[in-house]
Amino acid sequence: MSQKLGLLTELIDALCCLPGVGPKSAQRMALHLFQRDRGGAENLAKVLQVAVNTLQYCKQCRTLSEHELCELCRSPKRDEKTICVVESPADVWVINQANNYKGQFFVLNGRLSPLDGVGPEEIGLDILEQQLETNKVTELILATNATVEGEATAHFIAQIAQQYKIKVSRLAHGVPVGGELEFLDSSTLAHAFTGRRIIE
Amino acid sequence: MSQKLGLLTELIDALCCLPGVGPKSAQRMALHLFQRDRGGAENLAKVLQVAVNTLQYCKQCRTLSEHELCELCRSPKRDEKTICVVESPADVWVINQANNYKGQFFVLNGRLSPLDGVGPEEIGLDILEQQLETNKVTELILATNATVEGEATAHFIAQIAQQYKIKVSRLAHGVPVGGELEFLDSSTLAHAFTGRRIIE
Repeated sequence: MSQKLGLLTELIDALCCLPGVGPKSAQRMALHLFQRDRGGAENLAKVLQVAVNTLQYCKQCRTLSEHELCELCRSPKRDEKTICVVESPADVWVINQANNYKGQFFVLNGRLSPLDGVGPEEIGLDILEQQLETNKVTELILATNATVEGEATAHFIAQIAQQYKIKVSRLAHGVPVGGELEFLDSSTLAHAFTGRRIIE
Repeated sequence: MSQKLGLLTELIDALCCLPGVGPKSAQRMALHLFQRDRGGAENLAKVLQVAVNTLQYCKQCRTLSEHELCELCRSPKRDEKTICVVESPADVWVINQANNYKGQFFVLNGRLSPLDGVGPEEIGLDILEQQLETNKVTELILATNATVEGEATAHFIAQIAQQYKIKVSRLAHGVPVGGELEFLDSSTLAHAFTGRRIIE
């Protein structure tokens, strides 16, 4: 893109900050917005500007929200005795959609990764510990991802919680619903065997 | 996404207006912007807002520009005697990058497609005809795509230009540079044979 083209080039460069968007898709997006969907462009600009000005991390659960306390933390209907610890705000949405879990959340916005300089404070474990200290919480559900780093993070948080004698649980591993045993990896299958449940 | 999540949900919906972006990628984009690249989000919001307010079609060549007349049309260095007709502003950029073409452009922002209600006026042929009437133009280069609709559009414009006795040319078809004959379609190969050039 030549320097001459001014604003459109600037817009294309700006769109490249989106994940998975390179110069060619950014160009296609910019042209689409201004040739076929100007209303969409206007709306996107407005919402994005509002979001930049107001989105922040919820003081209590560290999810992204436009308020100091997010909707879930403000809601009187949520059970304050359980906290579900997740890695990302997206996990909060998934759990809320799939589940009738009614407790609170705590969003790490990352996972422990000492080599990348991500220690306990970077993922807000000091804030979580303050909440555990109040003695309101009776169960901590660790719903970090089932990756090596996610497991390590869960293990670390479990140790903290046990200092306060809080019950700690981890999401069950096993056969996905609708999944076929034939295609399951051996590690998951081993977990499914160990975690088998008696049919009563 | 539940109704509860407010602004982030709105942003995700707004991002879905981008071509090739569904709810899942929009969610990934929104989280990426606000967790890892807030500066990028801010910049994107600003540039997009400016673009929405100022981008318009250039009066002369119908490309997208923030001015009434685009940079290329204002530039005194461009040769006014040739006009290159293309389907999209992206084509202008590609030609400018690849080429030492120094004439003017005319952007159709589409192609003739009577079934979709796209007639000559929708692609600005009345404006092009006014420019041909002035007798300044000596050659019209038809650089519409080599698709059926692109060819039909080129044919239609050629007929108009010939009324004003203006020389009309069409981009050459042939073997792409670096291409292997083995993988070339027969139609392109036929064109390459007909258009063969004597080596002197």
